[in-house]
Amino acid sequence: MSPVAHNFADRLIEAIQRTRAPVCVGLDPVYERLPAAVREKHVAPCPAILEFGRGIIEAVADLVPALKINSAFFECHHACGIQTYDTLVREARLRGLLVIGDIKRADVGHSTDMYARAHLGGVKPESSQDGDLPDAVTVNPYLGVDGVQPFMEAARANGRGLFVLVQTSNPSAKEVQQLKLADGGTVAERVASLVALWGAAEGLVGQCGYSAIGAVVAPQEVELTRRLRVAMPQSVFLVPGFGAQGKTAREVALCFKKDGTGAIINASRSVIYAHDDAQYAGQDWKSAVAAACREFVSQAAKCATAL
Amino acid sequence: MSPVAHNFADRLIEAIQRTRAPVCVGLDPVYERLPAAVREKHVAPCPAILEFGRGIIEAVADLVPALKINSAFFECHHACGIQTYDTLVREARLRGLLVIGDIKRADVGHSTDMYARAHLGGVKPESSQDGDLPDAVTVNPYLGVDGVQPFMEAARANGRGLFVLVQTSNPSAKEVQQLKLADGGTVAERVASLVALWGAAEGLVGQCGYSAIGAVVAPQEVELTRRLRVAMPQSVFLVPGFGAQGKTAREVALCFKKDGTGAIINASRSVIYAHDDAQYAGQDWKSAVAAACREFVSQAAKCATAL
Repeated sequence: MSPVAHNFADRLIEAIQRTRAPVCVGLDPVYERLPAAVREKHVAPCPAILEFGRGIIEAVADLVPALKINSAFFECHHACGIQTYDTLVREARLRGLLVIGDIKRADVGHSTDMYARAHLGGVKPESSQDGDLPDAVTVNPYLGVDGVQPFMEAARANGRGLFVLVQTSNPSAKEVQQLKLADGGTVAERVASLVALWGAAEGLVGQCGYSAIGAVVAPQEVELTRRLRVAMPQSVFLVPGFGAQGKTAREVALCFKKDGTGAIINASRSVIYAHDDAQYAGQDWKSAVAAACREFVSQAAKCATAL
Repeated sequence: MSPVAHNFADRLIEAIQRTRAPVCVGLDPVYERLPAAVREKHVAPCPAILEFGRGIIEAVADLVPALKINSAFFECHHACGIQTYDTLVREARLRGLLVIGDIKRADVGHSTDMYARAHLGGVKPESSQDGDLPDAVTVNPYLGVDGVQPFMEAARANGRGLFVLVQTSNPSAKEVQQLKLADGGTVAERVASLVALWGAAEGLVGQCGYSAIGAVVAPQEVELTRRLRVAMPQSVFLVPGFGAQGKTAREVALCFKKDGTGAIINASRSVIYAHDDAQYAGQDWKSAVAAACREFVSQAAKCATAL
């Protein structure tokens, strides 16, 4: 791997350009929602989820740069769920996808070190597990830099990245993130300025000008999205809220810079459960996923160039 | 189990009174720090951590009401770590300890549902796994009530509890938690008022007057601790920072009410790594842990009555 390609942001931007798809597909597998054709073959959830995940990887690998795998949907199956998660992370990477582990972790001191080791390999990657680890993870900023620093160090050491939660897509996001501060702006804007600071640190900014430290930014108010885009000029935005969560192209477009770079839009259910969508009736489930993914990529590409 | 005892706060307060120990012991096992006597017997980390955890449970079970197990130290060993975590949760509960899963999770929508199912059994507990699940977990408030609600519902349905991160013990806690708000107070104080609101909901307050929704509160400034104690009258405080993290008895005392209830102090490394402490030299490691635990309980009990 060349020094240039080693930086996560460089790898991500290159993959987006190559696929012409500023997106990632979110793998949030709920056993009850899997295609009957998959469920019928297995008596336990984990093997069914593994087969489903493999089918998703196969269906989207040539269409998109990245897969986001949410740990919550695997943790609820305990050890066998984690085994399934690790297997899918490894196989998606082998298939050429960048993998974002959507783990939303943060702790302090030694505990954060352990999370960073678990998910990004720490600063001394254990080679036996390293291939199972995602290219990037999501982290929570409530604990300040202490909750993020070991992830940053692992990202720098291993050519990996992170996306810090700044502005989330849920209705109650405003309860904490939109609190107005005494010296101006909101909590989310202050977190954005921390992310900009963290991301500018030595060894994290790639040749492409973006940092390995990105941000999760869900479009809320238009002016807020604009301010966040300005506040984090070197951060790639991971944008939830497309598809099932119902944000418009115009709202999402503001997460991109004018040159069409700087954001990666996620869709989960609208792609992976395409077998439930009347629009794709009559196709086998993997063809339905590929068709829904193509439609998603087409819409996302319009967002990137809408400004 | 009686209806009274079903509420987590009632179970916790009863256990604190029975043991006369307003504490929990934190199990944060790092393989490299385990006693040589344990490491020598195993070629892989997980069996060593399992034996160590079992020894800790045995050493402290008659001395304290609760064990806090931090998921970070198990996640770094992937599936076999999670298996070990689940086993220790189950065995600690069978031994009569209340178990707090220190997971610091939060997500939105279906993802939070899945975390709540994984860690507190959701609203329809899967009986096969239910005994492996902790009595309570820690959660992160950055996403607002959406990140917490499914945990609250599971807590209500299953007689379990949660501790919401309000004020953490790390130096950079201030970067977000201590931001001053335009209409007065800080982010942590606003989160405290949310915790008070959430905890007062129907079905969560026990006969003891405390709610199943507690708060993680690390003593920082004296006045801040006082304000947080007033802001969350029905919440038990889970207090980190004792022992290795170096808070004084006076600072910790402010987390209790004047009647000596309302807080549970955690110590991790100063108890579980007592074999490294010159004070306990010459004892086998489990005896050292029990001795360190007795000393910790004695100091904590003084904090509870120091006001």
